[in-house]
Amino acid sequence: MQVREQRLRRDIEANAAFGSVAVENGHGRTVLTGTEADREAREYFCERLRDAGLDVRVDGVGNIVGRWTPESADLDAAAVAAGSHLDSVPEGGIFDGPLGVYSALEAVRAMQDAGVEPARPVEVVCFTEEEGQRFDGGLLGSAVAAGEMSLETALALEDESGVTLEAALDDIGFLGEGRVAADEWHAWLELHIEQSERLEDAGIPAGIVTTITGLSRCAIEITGEANHAGSTLMDDRSDALAGASEFVLDVERAARERVEAESDTAVATVGKLDVGPGAPNVIPGRAELTLDVRDIEQESIEYVVDRAKRSLDRIETERDVTTAFERPWNRHPVPMSDRCRTALEAAGETANIDTLSLHSGAAHDTMHVANVTDAGLLFAPSRDGISHNPLEWTEWEDCAASTRVLAGALTRLADADE
Amino acid sequence: MQVREQRLRRDIEANAAFGSVAVENGHGRTVLTGTEADREAREYFCERLRDAGLDVRVDGVGNIVGRWTPESADLDAAAVAAGSHLDSVPEGGIFDGPLGVYSALEAVRAMQDAGVEPARPVEVVCFTEEEGQRFDGGLLGSAVAAGEMSLETALALEDESGVTLEAALDDIGFLGEGRVAADEWHAWLELHIEQSERLEDAGIPAGIVTTITGLSRCAIEITGEANHAGSTLMDDRSDALAGASEFVLDVERAARERVEAESDTAVATVGKLDVGPGAPNVIPGRAELTLDVRDIEQESIEYVVDRAKRSLDRIETERDVTTAFERPWNRHPVPMSDRCRTALEAAGETANIDTLSLHSGAAHDTMHVANVTDAGLLFAPSRDGISHNPLEWTEWEDCAASTRVLAGALTRLADADE
Repeated sequence: MQVREQRLRRDIEANAAFGSVAVENGHGRTVLTGTEADREAREYFCERLRDAGLDVRVDGVGNIVGRWTPESADLDAAAVAAGSHLDSVPEGGIFDGPLGVYSALEAVRAMQDAGVEPARPVEVVCFTEEEGQRFDGGLLGSAVAAGEMSLETALALEDESGVTLEAALDDIGFLGEGRVAADEWHAWLELHIEQSERLEDAGIPAGIVTTITGLSRCAIEITGEANHAGSTLMDDRSDALAGASEFVLDVERAARERVEAESDTAVATVGKLDVGPGAPNVIPGRAELTLDVRDIEQESIEYVVDRAKRSLDRIETERDVTTAFERPWNRHPVPMSDRCRTALEAAGETANIDTLSLHSGAAHDTMHVANVTDAGLLFAPSRDGISHNPLEWTEWEDCAASTRVLAGALTRLADADE
Repeated sequence: MQVREQRLRRDIEANAAFGSVAVENGHGRTVLTGTEADREAREYFCERLRDAGLDVRVDGVGNIVGRWTPESADLDAAAVAAGSHLDSVPEGGIFDGPLGVYSALEAVRAMQDAGVEPARPVEVVCFTEEEGQRFDGGLLGSAVAAGEMSLETALALEDESGVTLEAALDDIGFLGEGRVAADEWHAWLELHIEQSERLEDAGIPAGIVTTITGLSRCAIEITGEANHAGSTLMDDRSDALAGASEFVLDVERAARERVEAESDTAVATVGKLDVGPGAPNVIPGRAELTLDVRDIEQESIEYVVDRAKRSLDRIETERDVTTAFERPWNRHPVPMSDRCRTALEAAGETANIDTLSLHSGAAHDTMHVANVTDAGLLFAPSRDGISHNPLEWTEWEDCAASTRVLAGALTRLADADE
């Protein structure tokens, strides 16, 4: 079975043109759900699926499935599926998501070229709004496919301008019907870039994930009093940004202490901070922040979130500000299925490609799918561990090698006996 | 001579409708230079000037002057002038600026009503872009009038979208010709809200300023590396926001220490902080901040700015980020003229209105005018010291009382012997 590196590369490069952003170094793209760039990326993907002879279906939340039903397959058998997402963060890279989508398609094409005769249909999947940049907090399409969020709830989500997901999908012609049901899959695999440096450091082209990190996302608001920067004495201030600054440093310190003491995979990030009114000569009266806490141990997450809350209590007391804290997400760590890990390991051995066992520090659609069927997650190396950035890069030969492992595992899982 | 509180109030309330913002409490407005709200405010002001029989002139940077030349006046004599500005910060209050503009007009109307026969023309002035929210750093129209900035430089300034001041003024029909020359004025007075609590605490309706604080404005950029919030270990991060948070707290500490040790009027503010890329699951790679430092002692300003620079040096060393520092403004403290202060004090005594001597922590157009002619600055009380905020408030009776002091001082300064 031969995965063709050039064919895979052509697709990923073509996809990189949609929403591409001008940068000095690297290759950046901004593909937010329901935008023109998203429409272009989806349409190109659907064309490629049809070119490979797959039947294309778009579900009610915009998830796209290309289904290959070879003559060898039992039409009533549960399909094996693989894929990822095509949306990106603002100024993101070109591999995060698209590698998983197009490697799944390339795996099917390689199986077709090699005359593989699977006993099950094979599906190539693109989930909607994985990054959560415009609607909700992310992993949205897979949440609906796994039944964790209803179609109605998802479609009613609004962006910052009040546009619903339903309207945004309809606008680009990708509001389909029904719901892709992940629990009907016999097994699921996702190939994704590692977004860390372990594979690169080890010189190994494919990583087999043991556990996906848990993740809590918190929303914090600090309210002080906007006032004149010149005529309000230092002692008379309620500066929301100064309070927010203490919070940022407190949660960083909490995560570092957890790393020292217990779990070196614990991380905490304030990625978004909006300050209002936001003028050089006005003391900030309002600061809105996000906090993202992750680890493969739920206990670490609870530790950092608890420290974050205590930080806010202290800031309220010491700074004459009020604070609000919400924790809209709390996803526990998710272990991968033994059956899928075994298929990936066997595929690596057969193809003579070294693999490494590791955890995933990033959340992936596979977290949701793993709750309803057997799921596996495969990593390709990321140069310097950089992602969510135009400098994100994976060598094409590593893309191809990891796709070979994916194709081999899909072939195994699509066999009648697996 | 009778200042009419209702007439003054009607003008200020009418002006408050332009750019008004819906708020739960208070009265907010957003009037940025060259916007529709600015056009409306300026047109209303010009109508009121004409209603009072003043000749209206708009200069090349949009400064508006209404000139009253009574029969008693020597046409060749230098005019006495008073005024302020009509623009606001985003979501600012309704008195900061408009009180000074409309009190000057009310003073002229009161002089007219009382049959005052001044020996000099009297001018009522509105300066362009005092707040510096759209173009440059503020006090723009007065900088041009005082010859500190050329008309050409001012007109070529661009907002964040690349629109020039010239185009913005032309767009609203307020791009005039020539230049109002502040050095031709015999004297200048400005009435402004205090933006602090000293008058309120003392129960005194008018404050006579001794010195206007010096002001340095700095622009800081911190560059780290945007990266995935989940898969980048704590030790591998270059977090621009964490660096910015340390900076915010360092400059706050520096100002507080200066207050403790040397000068209780020293203040430092980070009012604006933009974080990029600004997504919950991306480590911030970029933070852009402003720093505003003020005191009536230049030495305090240098102390805090020096501490700010040392903070950046430390953050660079400790956090694997790079920093950039600029100091586009450095305005030294400006004392007010004895002649103008004496006229204000005498006017208070004559009208039987208590006055208080105090410094100004805020910058005002009067800073520029004071460099080229005798200038005075008068304060009205601000409730709770709040300004740059919809909660900004001055009681109407205090508006009227301070306008009485202004009118009396203008009358004195417009006399042949003063």
